[in-house]
Amino acid sequence: MITLSLIGIGTGNLDHVTLAALRALNNADLILLPRKGEAKSDLIDLRRLLCERLLEAPVTTKIVEFDLPSRDGRHDYLGAVDDWHAAIANVWAQQIDEHLPNGGRVGMLVWGDPSLYDSSLRITQRLSAAGKQVEVEVVPGITSLQVLTAEHKIPLNALAEPVQITTGRRLRERGWPNDAATVAVMLDSGGAFTALPQDDIYIWWGAYLGMDKQCLIKGWLSDVGDQIIQRRAALRDTHGWIMDIYLLAKQPLL
Amino acid sequence: MITLSLIGIGTGNLDHVTLAALRALNNADLILLPRKGEAKSDLIDLRRLLCERLLEAPVTTKIVEFDLPSRDGRHDYLGAVDDWHAAIANVWAQQIDEHLPNGGRVGMLVWGDPSLYDSSLRITQRLSAAGKQVEVEVVPGITSLQVLTAEHKIPLNALAEPVQITTGRRLRERGWPNDAATVAVMLDSGGAFTALPQDDIYIWWGAYLGMDKQCLIKGWLSDVGDQIIQRRAALRDTHGWIMDIYLLAKQPLL
Ligand SMILES: C[S@@+](CC[C@H](N)C(=O)[O-])C[C@H]1O[C@@H](n2cnc3c(N)ncnc32)[C@H](O)[C@@H]1O
Ligand SMILES: C[S@@+](CC[C@H](N)C(=O)[O-])C[C@H]1O[C@@H](n2cnc3c(N)ncnc32)[C@H](O)[C@@H]1O
Repeated sequence: MITLSLIGIGTGNLDHVTLAALRALNNADLILLPRKGEAKSDLIDLRRLLCERLLEAPVTTKIVEFDLPSRDGRHDYLGAVDDWHAAIANVWAQQIDEHLPNGGRVGMLVWGDPSLYDSSLRITQRLSAAGKQVEVEVVPGITSLQVLTAEHKIPLNALAEPVQITTGRRLRERGWPNDAATVAVMLDSGGAFTALPQDDIYIWWGAYLGMDKQCLIKGWLSDVGDQIIQRRAALRDTHGWIMDIYLLAKQPLL
Repeated sequence: MITLSLIGIGTGNLDHVTLAALRALNNADLILLPRKGEAKSDLIDLRRLLCERLLEAPVTTKIVEFDLPSRDGRHDYLGAVDDWHAAIANVWAQQIDEHLPNGGRVGMLVWGDPSLYDSSLRITQRLSAAGKQVEVEVVPGITSLQVLTAEHKIPLNALAEPVQITTGRRLRERGWPNDAATVAVMLDSGGAFTALPQDDIYIWWGAYLGMDKQCLIKGWLSDVGDQIIQRRAALRDTHGWIMDIYLLAKQPLL
């Protein structure tokens, strides 16, 4: 019998971890740490650090690192993602069979919260499809969006108004979504907001949220848009990778 | 000098609390606990319990309960809310002057996360407007939406698709928002989803999330819609209050 805990760990700051996550980590017999390639080595370092700091002595949890298969660059995006998730599920199953042949509790550290633009739940479902029966448990974690609003000291929604959470790709393709007073944008490969009319939109931007190298910029898009694009490029050069997120509003939030 | 920490505490489960929240609680000189009237006495009990359990001995933090002013029922909703926030800011200022005359750190426990349909940040802003200068700090907490998705073991977004977070009132008035594959609904006074065409919409519903009396229902709206409305009414009768939230989708999430 395998229990798989998808443990939200927040976005780069050990203090984001909840008491439930702490318990799930310490109850795990095996923690699987995927390596995603060199560029984002900060991120695996952070996961290692998290295990080091948060596992209570005597540490009985086995920690195993493994390489993630990479996604093929084919044009059919959804198809490629689907195959990729299936390939990852196979690797998870292999690791579990090897390191926990008699069953037990497996923990996977999930960046932010497992519900938000994360594939762990989809991969887990493919595990079952691949004949590996697991009991799943989800432990919520602080999302990058919450760290963005906390650091800027703003709400996500204007009073009683709706919010749209979307991707950079989508914003570029479709523009400002209908029926939304504020729009949160994730997974932007850079400057998708330039596809919008620049007037009367305010932006709160953040990169590396929760980490030492956190960077925040806010202002009218017409004033700070270029600055954000340049800063983003410079930071990415310096660190070799970047994760950023922003909130856009057409009316005051407070 | 006053520092005011708005501390997200999750939605009814002590285990939702983050290490940052734990630290902020323990660093506070004063914790203000608003009483919101009898019906939701569970909620103040939970806040008391949280302080009891999470403050480390020796407890040097002063815990003060106070009554919230109530909102007038006038028709102009935004106007009434505005006056109400100003009135609450006055009460906060009074409590702080009385219990922390020489300055220090004030903690306010915020349900879920301070960014999501919560007025603490707006009230805080009015504090400054009322001449009370405070340094604000926001500590993110797990939202009810995250507990909903965690307990149902689902993502918030369909793969690479946007999500709309909205209110019951808005859903009733405007129907399914444009440009959204999934819709999360909060602050519904009951059954706003009946305003939608019932076909081909799946619902994941949850009440009292994170608490012992947590209740989950999922299914096609045409199958479980009535059941949810009846269960909600019955639970509300039993407990004297209810908080519920749901996610709607027109396509599979996994
Ligand atoms: C694959 S998604 C994962 C999101 C994650 N599950 C969460 O809850 O935040 C990655 C995107 O999240 C955002 N993100 C994650 N961590 C971030 C951080 N520390 N700072 C800024 N943005 C971040 C960025 O928009 C990035 O493109
Ligand atoms: C004023 S809003 C506050 C939301 C809170 N800041 C959060 O982050 O979840 C209250 C609404 O949140 C949702 N909610 C809060 N706590 C909940 C719980 N324990 N179970 C279900 N829904 C909850 C309900 O939709 C409720 O009407």
